[in-house]
Amino acid sequence: MNILFIMYDQLRFDYLSCAGHPHLHTPNFDRVAAKGVRFTNTYVQSPICGASRMSFYTGRYVSSHGAQWNGYPLRVGEITLGDHLREVGMNCWLLGKTHMKADAKGMARLGLAPDSVIGARQADCGFDTWARDDGLWGFGPDGYYDEKRSPYNEYLKSKGYDGDNPWSDYANAGVEDGNIASGWMFQNADKPANIREEDSETPWLTSEAIRFVDEVDGPWCAHLSFIKPHWPYIVPAPYHAMYGQNHVPQALRDKAELKAPHPVLGAYQKSAVAQAFQRDDVRRKVIPAYMGLIKQCDDQLGRLLDHLEATGKAEDTMIVLTSDHGDYLGDHWLGEKDFFHEASVKIPLIIYDPRASADGARGTICEALTESIDLAATFVEAAGGEVPDHILEGRSLMPWVRGETPEKWREFVVSEYDYGSTPRAPALGVSARDARIFMVFDGRWKLIHFEGGFRPMLFDLQTDPSEFIDLGEDPACASEIARLYDYLRAWGLRLAQRVTVSDSDIAEKRGKSGRRGILPFLVDGSEVAPELVEKYRGHARQIYTVQPAETAPEEGDKL
Amino acid sequence: MNILFIMYDQLRFDYLSCAGHPHLHTPNFDRVAAKGVRFTNTYVQSPICGASRMSFYTGRYVSSHGAQWNGYPLRVGEITLGDHLREVGMNCWLLGKTHMKADAKGMARLGLAPDSVIGARQADCGFDTWARDDGLWGFGPDGYYDEKRSPYNEYLKSKGYDGDNPWSDYANAGVEDGNIASGWMFQNADKPANIREEDSETPWLTSEAIRFVDEVDGPWCAHLSFIKPHWPYIVPAPYHAMYGQNHVPQALRDKAELKAPHPVLGAYQKSAVAQAFQRDDVRRKVIPAYMGLIKQCDDQLGRLLDHLEATGKAEDTMIVLTSDHGDYLGDHWLGEKDFFHEASVKIPLIIYDPRASADGARGTICEALTESIDLAATFVEAAGGEVPDHILEGRSLMPWVRGETPEKWREFVVSEYDYGSTPRAPALGVSARDARIFMVFDGRWKLIHFEGGFRPMLFDLQTDPSEFIDLGEDPACASEIARLYDYLRAWGLRLAQRVTVSDSDIAEKRGKSGRRGILPFLVDGSEVAPELVEKYRGHARQIYTVQPAETAPEEGDKL
Repeated sequence: MNILFIMYDQLRFDYLSCAGHPHLHTPNFDRVAAKGVRFTNTYVQSPICGASRMSFYTGRYVSSHGAQWNGYPLRVGEITLGDHLREVGMNCWLLGKTHMKADAKGMARLGLAPDSVIGARQADCGFDTWARDDGLWGFGPDGYYDEKRSPYNEYLKSKGYDGDNPWSDYANAGVEDGNIASGWMFQNADKPANIREEDSETPWLTSEAIRFVDEVDGPWCAHLSFIKPHWPYIVPAPYHAMYGQNHVPQALRDKAELKAPHPVLGAYQKSAVAQAFQRDDVRRKVIPAYMGLIKQCDDQLGRLLDHLEATGKAEDTMIVLTSDHGDYLGDHWLGEKDFFHEASVKIPLIIYDPRASADGARGTICEALTESIDLAATFVEAAGGEVPDHILEGRSLMPWVRGETPEKWREFVVSEYDYGSTPRAPALGVSARDARIFMVFDGRWKLIHFEGGFRPMLFDLQTDPSEFIDLGEDPACASEIARLYDYLRAWGLRLAQRVTVSDSDIAEKRGKSGRRGILPFLVDGSEVAPELVEKYRGHARQIYTVQPAETAPEEGDKL
Repeated sequence: MNILFIMYDQLRFDYLSCAGHPHLHTPNFDRVAAKGVRFTNTYVQSPICGASRMSFYTGRYVSSHGAQWNGYPLRVGEITLGDHLREVGMNCWLLGKTHMKADAKGMARLGLAPDSVIGARQADCGFDTWARDDGLWGFGPDGYYDEKRSPYNEYLKSKGYDGDNPWSDYANAGVEDGNIASGWMFQNADKPANIREEDSETPWLTSEAIRFVDEVDGPWCAHLSFIKPHWPYIVPAPYHAMYGQNHVPQALRDKAELKAPHPVLGAYQKSAVAQAFQRDDVRRKVIPAYMGLIKQCDDQLGRLLDHLEATGKAEDTMIVLTSDHGDYLGDHWLGEKDFFHEASVKIPLIIYDPRASADGARGTICEALTESIDLAATFVEAAGGEVPDHILEGRSLMPWVRGETPEKWREFVVSEYDYGSTPRAPALGVSARDARIFMVFDGRWKLIHFEGGFRPMLFDLQTDPSEFIDLGEDPACASEIARLYDYLRAWGLRLAQRVTVSDSDIAEKRGKSGRRGILPFLVDGSEVAPELVEKYRGHARQIYTVQPAETAPEEGDKL
């Protein structure tokens, strides 16, 4: 079997028709949901690309792998999904984005050349690379944001788009009065991107995926990782004009949220992106473009599904659809992601397993609390392996995929955010070390804990599903807060780094040192089996010491 | 400057005359203490060799490096003291024991050959190896406990000691009636080891150290790591007869400790070693041998100090004396180490800095709460480096060494123990994952937290310095327990794995992505400096899209 692990960047959990979006029709997402299981309570380990993805790709919490923000290198030697899958005989390929930054210093320390097979995997987050394109080819006075080569830019050049950076000049720009209308500016979000639709990013990567499935033998896991609907919010025709102002929902926000907000939330509300999305004119420009980008993703997904079906590959390919985090789009007076309301931290997740064992669950939903780190464990089990639970911190979702209900399941999910690299840290007077936030959510109560001396926030999603009312200072909630803090403490003490020894390794070796000659606690040797001590019973061959011991002997003369 | 980092294995904090031992005279330890600072509240990160040492050698808590018990490999790529010191131009050598087990699987994954320089460092805990001898050359029906080569055994063979394993047959055995009297058996502890004193382990390694300081150019850090006074408890003449029953103190134990003990402590009290040390005849045999081993260590330290002074090297060599944990010796009805009473978890620590900057502190003591992980940070500072506090979790002791009092110091120490590999785990019905204990000590209150659903233990060392009274269930102590649990939670959430990015890296890069062309939150571009957006203002060179955008355009035709 193969695994097609598809990720859309910044796709909100609720911007799909199968998830109930009132205007956006996504028949191809829905088509996979109808054949598989749709998970409705899946949370990312961090609502930011880099940290979240490193959790997907390692199956470990952000505090466990340490790559806590975009561009923080994943340290050399961290064990990845690719390592686990190769161990059970499945190759693991990358097509698209990871946001991985190589630990160049660590690689140099270990003498790993980036152009060796091993070095390349270390640099590409454990994947073998079919095409890597992180999709952010910004170029400014200090050079490129991303210093790698962009295969997408090379593709555009081969198609006749001119300049060094057609990603910026065509795929992510429109035209107005003969001038560039940059996709970076929200005012241009309603313009069509200045590119042939079939040359834009999502179709290009879909074509790469089709080429991949045709050319590469399995079993493989292919991480097909689209940059869209991530900003820049601009989409080629006809998608730019498919949705209008009447499709833009009211922002999920309440004036109460602006009154004496928690200091950290208050700082987020003042950020540039929040200020922009607080403007209705911005939302009316951006959200239709965001929806158009998703619609294009859906059409391209349909193209890929059709190809898999036409070639018979849909019958032996597990298909997984998900996202690395959501997008506030003005909800809660915020833009982007980066905080812990549902719009940001909750993701879509759909899993289709072609095997008969999953027949009983097709078209169902699963409401269990699930985490993005569960996918790595799921894929190892799907590939026929045993989940190495001393390394992978998530749990396999395969029981749910087969329609089974595990006897015991997690009671809470955890997500983290390290805002040390953002302007919020200095604005709040918080050191990089203390600029960390932890969310604990048990399905009803959501606690947000801040390092750095701030009070916690608390939402009750049962009585306040919109998350407008921060109960963090409500004395009536003290016992709930304490209970969630107990979860957080238990989580903080989890066994996360004993990655070189499994529980079964331990059980197997327990108590065996005696059979390797370590007998430290014997009074006279009668305590253990005779074969362990028999060699200590024999005649001393050479004698170097005076007898009896009670008299102070001379030093070291051989008798 | 050089650093001579000397470790004695299983040396109790109070078995030195400078620490107040009533019978054991250790003039050479005292001689270093008189020239340096003696730390009287230093705790190991785990009261067991392997885990404790990995914390010394990485400067990180056990839960951070993951090598939680003897023989659990330190994972490949974990950054060591050696890595830090080489970065500031100091070589880092090993003479003696580390108890490091290589992460062979991780090394294979990264293609690291054990016989390469880099591979050897990975396998030897970051050290360059002058002589590695872990000092436990047990051999039983299933082979050697330690599969490496023993340079000490080779030395003994070269001296004419016969057989495959003279470590066992001579260095750690006596003779009785012409038969081997194994050092493994406590009943033989009062016999002299069947070896010339100068050929026993401590003098052998001291000779290696003298050869090292004569032959190797600095600056170096040399980890001189003695196996003794660790068991087997047997010592050559004349040390075997220097101490007698009148030098054996009463065990620090109280019958109340045996009444309804905490279940985990109760399991420890039932262990083979505890049962043995509960017998006074065992204590009367073993403790004089233990003292003799320490006395021999002291004499050999004197020999080394004399050599350093005679060669002038004492003037540019920092000398550090410490241990990896203590030894219960029957206190609290226990033997060995492995639990959190002072006899086990507290260690001696003496630091002599030859530089004039330390003159004001010579011969003083420091009572601050210190941890074994502080040494790695101390050595980096002593070597002239800046402490990489995103990797090293300890704090440099150099201010204390210079007699300064840092403005802020830690409020508590943490130590951990993973007993999953011991018979206690199955005896208590606890899984390997849950067989973990955490100690939090704030200088007065010592909380011991158990995973696996047990209640905590609590000692008040102010009113109960002997640690006889477990207050873990005392309602009057609820607020102290809660306060210490808050420390534990904060510690559990510490920033431990963001090892590839420092706080200053973060501060330096903060807010600079705009200058690399990432401009995601602009409404119209007026929000930023003109040079960041000027390239988006120009004439569109090629146009691929129909204007105006408001009409649904044709796909992709170039106009």
